[in-house]
Amino acid sequence: MSNKYVYLFNEGQGLGKELLGGKGANLAEMTSLGMPVPFGFTVTTDACNKYYEDGKVLTDEVIAEIENAMKALEAEAGKEFGSLENPFLVSVRSGSRASMPGMMDTVLNLGLNDVTVEGLAKKTGNKRFAYDSYRRFIQMFSDVVIGLEKSKFERILDEIKKSKGVELDTELSGDDMKKVADTFKDLYKKEMGTEFPQDPKVQLIEAVKAVFSSWDNPRANVYRRMNDIPSNWGTAVNVQSMVFGNMGEKSGTGVAFTRDPSTGEKKLYGEYLMNAQGEDVVAGIRTPLPISELEKQNSAIYTQFVNIANKLEQHYKDMQDMEFTIEEGVLFMLQTRNGKRTAKSALRIAIELVKEGMIDKKTALMMIDPKQLDALLHPQFDAADLKAAEVIATGLPASPGAATGLAVFTAERAMELVEQGKQVVLVRLETSPEDIEGMYAAQGILTARGGMTSHAAVVARGMGTCCVAGCGSVVINESTKTFTVGGKTYNELAPISLDGSTGKVYGQAVKTIAASVEGDFYTIMGWADEFRAMKIRTNADSPADARTAIKFGAEGIGLTRTEHMFFEEDRIFAIREMIVSKTVEERKRALAKILPIQKNDFIGIYNEMKEMPVTIRFLDPPLHEFVPHTDAEIRALAVEMKLDFETLKATVEGLKEFNPMLGHRGCRLSVTYPEIAEMQTQAVMEAAIDCNKRGIKVVPEIMIPLVGEIKELKYVKNIVVETAERVMKEQGLTIKYMIGTMIEVPRAAITADEIAKEAEFFSFGTNDLTQMTFGFSRDDAGTFLEDYYTKKIFEQDPFAKLDQDGVGKLVEMACKLGRSVRPDIKLGICGEHGGDPSSVEFCHNAGLAYVSCSPFRVPIAKLAAAQANIKNPRV
Amino acid sequence: MSNKYVYLFNEGQGLGKELLGGKGANLAEMTSLGMPVPFGFTVTTDACNKYYEDGKVLTDEVIAEIENAMKALEAEAGKEFGSLENPFLVSVRSGSRASMPGMMDTVLNLGLNDVTVEGLAKKTGNKRFAYDSYRRFIQMFSDVVIGLEKSKFERILDEIKKSKGVELDTELSGDDMKKVADTFKDLYKKEMGTEFPQDPKVQLIEAVKAVFSSWDNPRANVYRRMNDIPSNWGTAVNVQSMVFGNMGEKSGTGVAFTRDPSTGEKKLYGEYLMNAQGEDVVAGIRTPLPISELEKQNSAIYTQFVNIANKLEQHYKDMQDMEFTIEEGVLFMLQTRNGKRTAKSALRIAIELVKEGMIDKKTALMMIDPKQLDALLHPQFDAADLKAAEVIATGLPASPGAATGLAVFTAERAMELVEQGKQVVLVRLETSPEDIEGMYAAQGILTARGGMTSHAAVVARGMGTCCVAGCGSVVINESTKTFTVGGKTYNELAPISLDGSTGKVYGQAVKTIAASVEGDFYTIMGWADEFRAMKIRTNADSPADARTAIKFGAEGIGLTRTEHMFFEEDRIFAIREMIVSKTVEERKRALAKILPIQKNDFIGIYNEMKEMPVTIRFLDPPLHEFVPHTDAEIRALAVEMKLDFETLKATVEGLKEFNPMLGHRGCRLSVTYPEIAEMQTQAVMEAAIDCNKRGIKVVPEIMIPLVGEIKELKYVKNIVVETAERVMKEQGLTIKYMIGTMIEVPRAAITADEIAKEAEFFSFGTNDLTQMTFGFSRDDAGTFLEDYYTKKIFEQDPFAKLDQDGVGKLVEMACKLGRSVRPDIKLGICGEHGGDPSSVEFCHNAGLAYVSCSPFRVPIAKLAAAQANIKNPRV
Repeated sequence: MSNKYVYLFNEGQGLGKELLGGKGANLAEMTSLGMPVPFGFTVTTDACNKYYEDGKVLTDEVIAEIENAMKALEAEAGKEFGSLENPFLVSVRSGSRASMPGMMDTVLNLGLNDVTVEGLAKKTGNKRFAYDSYRRFIQMFSDVVIGLEKSKFERILDEIKKSKGVELDTELSGDDMKKVADTFKDLYKKEMGTEFPQDPKVQLIEAVKAVFSSWDNPRANVYRRMNDIPSNWGTAVNVQSMVFGNMGEKSGTGVAFTRDPSTGEKKLYGEYLMNAQGEDVVAGIRTPLPISELEKQNSAIYTQFVNIANKLEQHYKDMQDMEFTIEEGVLFMLQTRNGKRTAKSALRIAIELVKEGMIDKKTALMMIDPKQLDALLHPQFDAADLKAAEVIATGLPASPGAATGLAVFTAERAMELVEQGKQVVLVRLETSPEDIEGMYAAQGILTARGGMTSHAAVVARGMGTCCVAGCGSVVINESTKTFTVGGKTYNELAPISLDGSTGKVYGQAVKTIAASVEGDFYTIMGWADEFRAMKIRTNADSPADARTAIKFGAEGIGLTRTEHMFFEEDRIFAIREMIVSKTVEERKRALAKILPIQKNDFIGIYNEMKEMPVTIRFLDPPLHEFVPHTDAEIRALAVEMKLDFETLKATVEGLKEFNPMLGHRGCRLSVTYPEIAEMQTQAVMEAAIDCNKRGIKVVPEIMIPLVGEIKELKYVKNIVVETAERVMKEQGLTIKYMIGTMIEVPRAAITADEIAKEAEFFSFGTNDLTQMTFGFSRDDAGTFLEDYYTKKIFEQDPFAKLDQDGVGKLVEMACKLGRSVRPDIKLGICGEHGGDPSSVEFCHNAGLAYVSCSPFRVPIAKLAAAQANIKNPRV
Repeated sequence: MSNKYVYLFNEGQGLGKELLGGKGANLAEMTSLGMPVPFGFTVTTDACNKYYEDGKVLTDEVIAEIENAMKALEAEAGKEFGSLENPFLVSVRSGSRASMPGMMDTVLNLGLNDVTVEGLAKKTGNKRFAYDSYRRFIQMFSDVVIGLEKSKFERILDEIKKSKGVELDTELSGDDMKKVADTFKDLYKKEMGTEFPQDPKVQLIEAVKAVFSSWDNPRANVYRRMNDIPSNWGTAVNVQSMVFGNMGEKSGTGVAFTRDPSTGEKKLYGEYLMNAQGEDVVAGIRTPLPISELEKQNSAIYTQFVNIANKLEQHYKDMQDMEFTIEEGVLFMLQTRNGKRTAKSALRIAIELVKEGMIDKKTALMMIDPKQLDALLHPQFDAADLKAAEVIATGLPASPGAATGLAVFTAERAMELVEQGKQVVLVRLETSPEDIEGMYAAQGILTARGGMTSHAAVVARGMGTCCVAGCGSVVINESTKTFTVGGKTYNELAPISLDGSTGKVYGQAVKTIAASVEGDFYTIMGWADEFRAMKIRTNADSPADARTAIKFGAEGIGLTRTEHMFFEEDRIFAIREMIVSKTVEERKRALAKILPIQKNDFIGIYNEMKEMPVTIRFLDPPLHEFVPHTDAEIRALAVEMKLDFETLKATVEGLKEFNPMLGHRGCRLSVTYPEIAEMQTQAVMEAAIDCNKRGIKVVPEIMIPLVGEIKELKYVKNIVVETAERVMKEQGLTIKYMIGTMIEVPRAAITADEIAKEAEFFSFGTNDLTQMTFGFSRDDAGTFLEDYYTKKIFEQDPFAKLDQDGVGKLVEMACKLGRSVRPDIKLGICGEHGGDPSSVEFCHNAGLAYVSCSPFRVPIAKLAAAQANIKNPRV
């Protein structure tokens, strides 16, 4: 940290946005480019961090620097802070390293008081302007610095307008505006018990502190969490000479983009408003004019602005988002930044910038936020229709996209209505594997319980279906088939809508626009393929999943969860029979029924994937997940299986565990019931041999889950090898096959050198690894994670973004230990993190060969992998 | 591994029992000391390991070595294997590195067949002797090598004795014995379909293989697990010229100890039987004579034996357990080894050997198995009474000692009957904290579910009460107050007995002998204190626990589980009120009721411990553990708390978690409800200040549980510090206090350098750390751990013995990282492992400052710590 906390705009060029924030750095840059920027200075992000370290105090040292910089501003402007004759006014704005639009605060017209407002009126000969500026300042200062409610001020303004019988602010006279200002000051005094602060220096320091404080307001914290922005970045503050767009009809203010932010088309795009200040453009009281109108209104200014815009785009080599003000016919640039854009336009702009020779492909790839691609792959709401829709609840954004349909409460009902041609949203307390077909049928899924990696969330992401999970404020009554939220009850068939990208739930139908991936998408994917070092596989449990993933460019399957195949109606009974078996013979009999089904499943997947690698994980979850739980269901199964109800119930009860996540599952099942591993091996090998006989050179990768001790792996591996050898002999064909393990138990990572002696590949199961490394389960953490965010203990959900300091250490340790005994060990990841860009980057840096993610995340992972390799090329 | 697999006794001196096994090494040693040892050779433990590696095959290489060694034996004896004129016979016995009495197999008289038996008869002129030897050999070979049931042979012998109208074997004639041998051979043929093998070389090789195989029999595996013997040690085989104690009245056989193995008294102790072979002494058909009788019968032999015994004790500097045979008036030594002994005699012998100048104190300490001390601290069964008792079930030996009493099924009933002066055994499906008073009242506790670290087990060990846990074969019906096992139902008040050291359950009353620690115990503890480097603390939750622990020499409390204080009747309602509170105010009101109770608890503990360190852990378990679960209980609480039943029930339901072990517990509770940490800090500080004001210089150690992330600790620490400062100000006294954390989440170990920045001490919570590192919970692992032992995946229960390869790595990592930022950080362990000798040794080597264990384990930990420091002195 440097000892200098304040930089004038003409000192800041090249110091970078880490120190000056985005706005400050760009203002310094524009200044150095000779553009018309009102003079000012930046209080650095270091000062912000110091402010927090010092216990939310601005030290004398920093205050002195600010006051010195103010003197330079006054000298340059030839005006004086607090002067009656020649008053100097400034704006105070936040500007952090990453753009956080609307998250932090701004104060304009600072320096006005009862004296200077008169000076301003006199100097400009425009009393209305002066008092308009003053009332704006009073309101903004009261709101931003003090925290008084904006609406109270707006009510006063409305009343005065009404009393004058006018509609627009611009219709109020100078005297009217003075009255507004006076009434505002009265309100301030009434609320605060003191007069509105008159000393401009006090106003300034308080405003700087307020901006620093706004870095830590709740909406900024949430925004940062959503956008992976670390809280230790801090914000800078920019103090700048005021220029006025509200000085009369020759003044104005506007915003413009060098390209269309929603389509990407290369043309100046924006709007402006004459005789207005900053917020008026977006406030919607007066309708702004399209920027093209400016050409007619003032072609000199327009041309000057177009030239500046072009120069800025050339300079920053990216689409620019600019703010400008015209004061009495003179153009001033207030801000420029790389513009926010839709996913669609992000692709087009990146591609066209390359075509225009402005950037190379690598730079183009780095410009696109991988997460944005989601929007292209899933339906989105129609923006116009959405505006009118009411948000009735907000849950976790568990699987992106937009969905609208009739509320149903059971999977059966969902299928029934969909067969009738209706669109439904499945509303469940939580989903279980039995719901899978209903989940397929539904447009969207809403659950009251469960986190980002709950069953509903994982399955929905795999299917690409919109899902809002863990929406606790929705109280579901499954027996009456209703849900209640915010005091209102919604019946079955009530139309509702979900936004799986934000977690919002709407109590009505909202029009959706279908997903569309076009040429630009494939161009960018092609470029990503050129530059990435890691392979991208997918998690797929069915031929349909596999097809989807291949469409998105998957290069193999990193995880096939065999248990997900168990739930379809034709097979669940055989599974249940297997589970409640009391002897090896009974169990083998049940497994024999499952064998041909599993084999066919595998053949189906291999047929889709052809010779791409497919990793098949053996049975993983606790067995009780498969058995019926209610007495009625147990009774039905007992009848079907010709078992005594009480006996069956006792068996089901006996399968219950205190902590299923830490219970009898994974390879532990094959240790106690080797016949399960035997059956699964037989199914895999027979399927693979079948394919090989048909000319598809399949090399099966068998993955043993939840290994924590080398002897566990050895034991199960022996069964696999013996069975595989037997099957190959029976089938008269010897094929290559691999046996590996998931690294998902901390002990496996710690003893990976031992494990690697037997495992030909490691696949990091970072969902479980995260649970066990932190010691909390994804299903239970929901009750306290919110508090952890609020109290800044966590900035991110460790189940969504790989925890590099803890879990990541174990991954790195396992990679190193694994390679130490088997240098060519194949390393990959198949946890949910495989589709998260920052986690993909971590995997790249850890040297993994591939990441595997749900089909709809494949494009994201590809782009993230390319970006990771551009940042840190693999040799 | 050497390439030589067979050593003659005169080649083996100094090669050690790792290679030759205990018996082989000592036979070689005795041979080199010139003692009368029948000549023989040892097939090494390496050969045993090779046998298993080669797939249970004895290679030609090893067979050739054995045959060569046999030739040397024949030459020395001047006899010949398989010869009619001068037949050579051998014994074949196992002999592993650690003594495993009765676990493996022995074959005597090998070399006999239809031809050589006649030669033996002719040569000795004793047909009876020859056929007696033959029939013994046939039976032993059939049993050990082939696996035919011994009882079938015994039945034949009984029938022939009956037909002859005699009672003792010795009353049978030579012809009778021939008939026995012939009938035995017929049985063999009938069972096996082939003749009894006649080729002595085949007999020998098969016998060697059988002994190697017996290393892996189930009882040997169980024995090894109970005694920490690694399975890769293997056993050796000793082949030795036969000498015969059954050659007539001038022959005999016996066993003797150089000191009394049950009292430790220094006098020759043992028994012998004339005209008998090996197993007759212990079989109990004829009553053996005390060794002192031999002096009268044959004083020369007796004197010779006494001299040898003295020489051996001097040589090995420990009490010896010897086997000898007298053949036709000539003494032969068949074995010597350090004798097994009772805990009581172990102490006496160790102390007296030091007094006699034979060994030093360090050697004495190393001679005592710390685990044996348990027997001194708990009641034991009366051995005579136990003989007649029937074992009806076997569970886990969860807390040592013996208990007898009337079966009761609820804690209330236990208290009721104990008040009436009865002794009870509490029988529960599993215990919960509500049962605590009943558990205190009972003599012993039997549970059907739960492992070595279940609630019942942990609490029972803490109280020193006998407990058999996880006894799955006992089916408990709580409503009828009965339990059924092995088809028999036991009602309430049925007398039963438990052996908490073996896990055995007896269906009747068995007399017990009270625990008694005497002078020798304190002498040994004093010596342990001289030599150990680690402090020994105790886990204690009440003044009573603290008192017990101090009696056993505890030097502080390493873990006070504050939640254990919450269950007594006067406070549980306040706790429940706190839990179901919906607002901070409600919760604070409930906490205010708990505050004075906690404070008094802490004062009580400090009053016992005086200025010794006391670590108090803040609330740890999930809150739902404290709430009532049945509707009836919830209704009662609702009435008491003036709450609506449905509301309260919903609150209780809402507290349920999928995986409580991975849920809302530990410091997570204080993050969401800071007022809990506030109350607990206030209670600790007020109690400590109260003591300080009374002159007891208490320095409280506050321990924050379940930290996984430094910011968690920081957050809770801030609350603690603020509260502590406030309390000190209020109370007008500033005292020193410490804040530390448990390292029990893998992530805490991995990021211990960060954690140590805020923690003044680490206490390793190895119960949780083991659960999370392995990914299975102690409560759920019971369903599969047995399979893991059977299938040799685990040799030890990782909850009982610290897993050094996995969990231990994390402990070492945390120590290293912790010290790297805080060199003087105080390190200790408070998991169950703190009372396990091998884990104590690990902790010593890892450099921990102390271990903390349940009060009754303190002596064990002290001795283990001394042994660890003797083996690997801390500098």
